[in-house]
Amino acid sequence: MSVITLTSDFGTCDWFVGTMKGVILGINARARITDLTHEITPGDVTAAAFALASACRFFPQGTIHLAVVDPGVGGPRRAIAIKTSRFVYIGPDNGVLSLAVAPEDVRTVRLLENPRLFRSEVSRTFHGRDIFAPVAAHLSKGLGFRKLGPRAASYVQLGWPKAYVNGNELVGEVVHIDHFGNAITNIPEHLLLRTTGLGVFVKKKHLCDFQECYSAVPAGAPVAVVGSSGCLEIAVNQGSAAQVLKLKRGDEITACPYNGVREQHHECLG
Amino acid sequence: MSVITLTSDFGTCDWFVGTMKGVILGINARARITDLTHEITPGDVTAAAFALASACRFFPQGTIHLAVVDPGVGGPRRAIAIKTSRFVYIGPDNGVLSLAVAPEDVRTVRLLENPRLFRSEVSRTFHGRDIFAPVAAHLSKGLGFRKLGPRAASYVQLGWPKAYVNGNELVGEVVHIDHFGNAITNIPEHLLLRTTGLGVFVKKKHLCDFQECYSAVPAGAPVAVVGSSGCLEIAVNQGSAAQVLKLKRGDEITACPYNGVREQHHECLG
Amino acid sequence: MSVITLTSDFGTCDWFVGTMKGVILGINARARITDLTHEITPGDVTAAAFALASACRFFPQGTIHLAVVDPGVGGPRRAIAIKTSRFVYIGPDNGVLSLAVAPEDVRTVRLLENPRLFRSEVSRTFHGRDIFAPVAAHLSKGLGFRKLGPRAASYVQLGWPKAYVNGNELVGEVVHIDHFGNAITNIPEHLLLRTTGLGVFVKKKHLCDFQECYSAVPAGAPVAVVGSSGCLEIAVNQGSAAQVLKLKRGDEITACPYNGVREQHHECLG
Repeated sequence: MSVITLTSDFGTCDWFVGTMKGVILGINARARITDLTHEITPGDVTAAAFALASACRFFPQGTIHLAVVDPGVGGPRRAIAIKTSRFVYIGPDNGVLSLAVAPEDVRTVRLLENPRLFRSEVSRTFHGRDIFAPVAAHLSKGLGFRKLGPRAASYVQLGWPKAYVNGNELVGEVVHIDHFGNAITNIPEHLLLRTTGLGVFVKKKHLCDFQECYSAVPAGAPVAVVGSSGCLEIAVNQGSAAQVLKLKRGDEITACPYNGVREQHHECLG
Repeated sequence: MSVITLTSDFGTCDWFVGTMKGVILGINARARITDLTHEITPGDVTAAAFALASACRFFPQGTIHLAVVDPGVGGPRRAIAIKTSRFVYIGPDNGVLSLAVAPEDVRTVRLLENPRLFRSEVSRTFHGRDIFAPVAAHLSKGLGFRKLGPRAASYVQLGWPKAYVNGNELVGEVVHIDHFGNAITNIPEHLLLRTTGLGVFVKKKHLCDFQECYSAVPAGAPVAVVGSSGCLEIAVNQGSAAQVLKLKRGDEITACPYNGVREQHHECLG
Repeated sequence: MSVITLTSDFGTCDWFVGTMKGVILGINARARITDLTHEITPGDVTAAAFALASACRFFPQGTIHLAVVDPGVGGPRRAIAIKTSRFVYIGPDNGVLSLAVAPEDVRTVRLLENPRLFRSEVSRTFHGRDIFAPVAAHLSKGLGFRKLGPRAASYVQLGWPKAYVNGNELVGEVVHIDHFGNAITNIPEHLLLRTTGLGVFVKKKHLCDFQECYSAVPAGAPVAVVGSSGCLEIAVNQGSAAQVLKLKRGDEITACPYNGVREQHHECLG
């Protein structure tokens, strides 16, 4: 009983996701299909890659992760599957798989070029249904990975902003605004030398301080916490940081410890 | 093969719900996971409690109902599981389970304090993934309820407005606006002595009369019916009562029988 | 292990869909329930019929397709099940099943009139939960089709606009705007005598030319392709045709080959 996850920008107002599930169930009636999200902004490969990277490791060993944000569908972009020591990833070779694969031990990458695994008619606009779904279903039934097609020497890797230390500042950026309006940054917990007396700033403007949890501040107040991805996250308790603080993806964020007294931190920004 | 339902305010544009499912499937690959809704307004514990209370009884005996609307996550609020004669309920002890549990025969309430049932790392912001999901999964595999943690003497119960009889009027309020714009009230069918010649009023203004079904009135016309929850519901046939009649949660609603002739009902409002 | 698909206008912010699944699982714990979509515009029977017709054939033989867009619920409209050589369709007899059934080999149509298959209490507003879901669940367990109720001599069929040839033009219309803003037309691929040098027009205004795939034109440019339903579809590469080109359901679309030089096509529109 294999788990197949689906990530896409297909939305849920049409029948597209359901159709992929129909194709999978027609090949493997026992597949356990689980949606990550289908509400990626159309064509936002980076957002899909981040969603997949954030979620995939919480699934059981052997899970097949299928991600289809595919603005180049029908054109020359390749279709690939990547096997790591834990998972299989399937999707267009446009980087959508790359953030999830990055921390893993890659075993092999193959091009999806075996038409016997595809639907008999392959459209030019919906490879999720005609190529990726059936390939995932066949793999979930135990098909040998080498049957997919020839090995690929490489795959497209997205650039991803890394947080860095600058003096006694940590410098990163907002990489995602979530459903609650929380601003998830790329500053990992392990870079935080301490979590008390830590101020968080955007464009040198003080936003909030670091706390243990959302409710450490009053409702409506901003707060920085270690979020569920293990990175610094800026929130407004019972509110939306994106709205209240006007944060958006790409905003530079700095975190800076207070040296004894609050005033001193201004120096570290000087 | 146990059923686990999920209710939350996590939305569906991120990977949060999918991640909870991954955790569950990693513990019990055979769990049947079913979404109630993830579109509760962020932090609206009462709305989640009402959704769960409205849906839970339609699931088979033994279903595990997991509800995570949890603005106090990471803070001092407790995590609980409630076992009734029919179901198990799991969530934060903030009242989100209480409306569902109210009409049931409660067997035992336990605190979730056994870290061996949690994910090895527990975040401060996502107990849905790190505590509630794994506990639900373990229970779905047959784990003894007493393994969860110590008994709790009580649990947080939400207040809930009760409809009442005032002379020949029934007085209640709008408790939910649904996707169609129907206004669901807390006036139960059994309080309605009759369902013909019954007028429905908001702030003494006549809204509509009671009918057997939506289509008993022309398209665009308001109508009161017994809704699927067994309570009086105000609708607009093929339209949105919330929009057309400007109804919202909390609006007081009165239902009043006409005494022979229409004019007489004004007295009952007098 | 039977597959049951669900299509409705119930939205996902309430507990309605989850409740239907609970009812199904209470009767057949092994049913594989798959959502097509629940975001049909409330009461838009035609849109639901088109969604179902677009998706149903991608499911395995024997799938039970349940569609509930049901503005006449509780009134005199009938409830039916239609058995074809491949599938079973269940829903209100208002045409919602008819576009899916149209190309299939219909074996028998029955009215849902056996109350022993319904929930013990049948509401006047939610037959999805009280009638359609339990009937689907019983069928998925192998219940004989004749147990549903008496044969029906006919069922409601929606009109559906057919594309036609007018001289050297193909004339059709937009039948759906999808999540990406693509305008799906009713002009089937087999009517296209050629797919190069083909211009697409709305109200005699040139919109775009036919290409092999979205990415054949620059980002932001309009393009016509054969979409995943096998019909001509108007898109904007990495954008929304509905927004950019102001297309909507019902807009007349013509496709016309260029005769050698571009200018000549104006004659065909003359």
